[in-house]
Amino acid sequence: MKPYIHKVQYYETDKMQFTHHSNYIRFMEEARIDLMEQLGWGYDKMEQEHIISPVIDISCHYKKSTSYPDVIKIIVTVEKLSSVKLILAYQMYVEDELVCESASTHCFLNETGKPINLKRQYPDFYSALENICH
Amino acid sequence: MKPYIHKVQYYETDKMQFTHHSNYIRFMEEARIDLMEQLGWGYDKMEQEHIISPVIDISCHYKKSTSYPDVIKIIVTVEKLSSVKLILAYQMYVEDELVCESASTHCFLNETGKPINLKRQYPDFYSALENICH
Amino acid sequence: MKPYIHKVQYYETDKMQFTHHSNYIRFMEEARIDLMEQLGWGYDKMEQEHIISPVIDISCHYKKSTSYPDVIKIIVTVEKLSSVKLILAYQMYVEDELVCESASTHCFLNETGKPINLKRQYPDFYSALENICH
Amino acid sequence: MKPYIHKVQYYETDKMQFTHHSNYIRFMEEARIDLMEQLGWGYDKMEQEHIISPVIDISCHYKKSTSYPDVIKIIVTVEKLSSVKLILAYQMYVEDELVCESASTHCFLNETGKPINLKRQYPDFYSALENICH
Repeated sequence: MKPYIHKVQYYETDKMQFTHHSNYIRFMEEARIDLMEQLGWGYDKMEQEHIISPVIDISCHYKKSTSYPDVIKIIVTVEKLSSVKLILAYQMYVEDELVCESASTHCFLNETGKPINLKRQYPDFYSALENICH
Repeated sequence: MKPYIHKVQYYETDKMQFTHHSNYIRFMEEARIDLMEQLGWGYDKMEQEHIISPVIDISCHYKKSTSYPDVIKIIVTVEKLSSVKLILAYQMYVEDELVCESASTHCFLNETGKPINLKRQYPDFYSALENICH
Repeated sequence: MKPYIHKVQYYETDKMQFTHHSNYIRFMEEARIDLMEQLGWGYDKMEQEHIISPVIDISCHYKKSTSYPDVIKIIVTVEKLSSVKLILAYQMYVEDELVCESASTHCFLNETGKPINLKRQYPDFYSALENICH
Repeated sequence: MKPYIHKVQYYETDKMQFTHHSNYIRFMEEARIDLMEQLGWGYDKMEQEHIISPVIDISCHYKKSTSYPDVIKIIVTVEKLSSVKLILAYQMYVEDELVCESASTHCFLNETGKPINLKRQYPDFYSALENICH
């Protein structure tokens, strides 16, 4: 899969001169959605299919500060996949230096908030994710 | 009406050391919603009544920079009210010094996106706004 | 100059289903900085040259709502330029439909907060802006 | 210590109708700074004393969605304290229901980015944190 590129915006910095740490959680979402779109399962497609995929867990390890106008390259990988749970791992680089490592855990719900068995109910989506699993 | 108080957060500053100018637009929304709640017409109530009130115009004049940990006092007034349009004016102060003056223009739509005649269809809401009009 | 492209992010939407209006102010900054970079005067260069260019005025007219995953094309033009003031105009399009028109006014200060005469003190920068003025 | 109260803002929601998950990281900062201020060590005081305290780790477990106009009560506790590292734990409640549990890890640097031994160099600050440690 193609890495995702995020250019740090001026409004994403804070008075400590660096990218505010909360924004990396947003970069993760950008990269995650980009990955899903590359797989043919963008959030708009998921919404049409009535799949909701909330974040249930986030962890983020900040290795090195970044700032405007750094360009961050984000590599997303499927770390773990089951019928009911997805764990994605993110590695963020600025000029080949690792600046941040993080992970997000997701479940899959239908529109009424009930858990979905992804493997059984959306085998195409499940396969697409399985194919890029480590 | 009671003024609205917003304490500038660290994440609202940028590397120029000041509150990022985009955040004042959010402070306006906070103060506007607080005003509506004081009138008994919070956004949750408006949603229950199927009134959508999008922003159609914003203007903002930045007089003096602010930063963390400034406390901004925001006074909202109804500048103009008609059956189909509302203009609100905002004055923001830090320790009695005017730091920002702004305005927002709103229309009123029903859930299908059709314009509402507020005076005819929601006379209570219209009266509440009229009462605090200059 | 090349237009700026902003893809609306999921986190930029709100529960009304649309891009939150405050984010357009950020898109303006993105497009403005991109223009400055195209002219060879990115914010990092300006900071090296000890030029601070605060926003003193914003106006924004929302024509049509946008949402994730809309792609917004932003055209920035120099509307007015003097030795001490710059007004930029922004036109935002989604698939050739105008969704937002806005403007920002800027002054130029040195590091101690004193106004700069751009034409005299930074003639190269002034010329670059003048060249793309209407 | 007094819990911190954050009222969810409309602009903090997303089109899934809930508070966007990235904002909880900001609520953590608000609550953390409030705790530091209660201890007499607000970020402005820390900056005056030339202490920088970057976030090096975040973890966040989302238990239950929130939305505008929920009022979130945040309890911050010192989970671990050493001369060079601080771990804070956060519990967020809406009407006595736990909606989010999270933690942040911080180190302490001086202005040149060198690690500080907090216990030796800022014994008052260290004691204040130690006093509220579990």
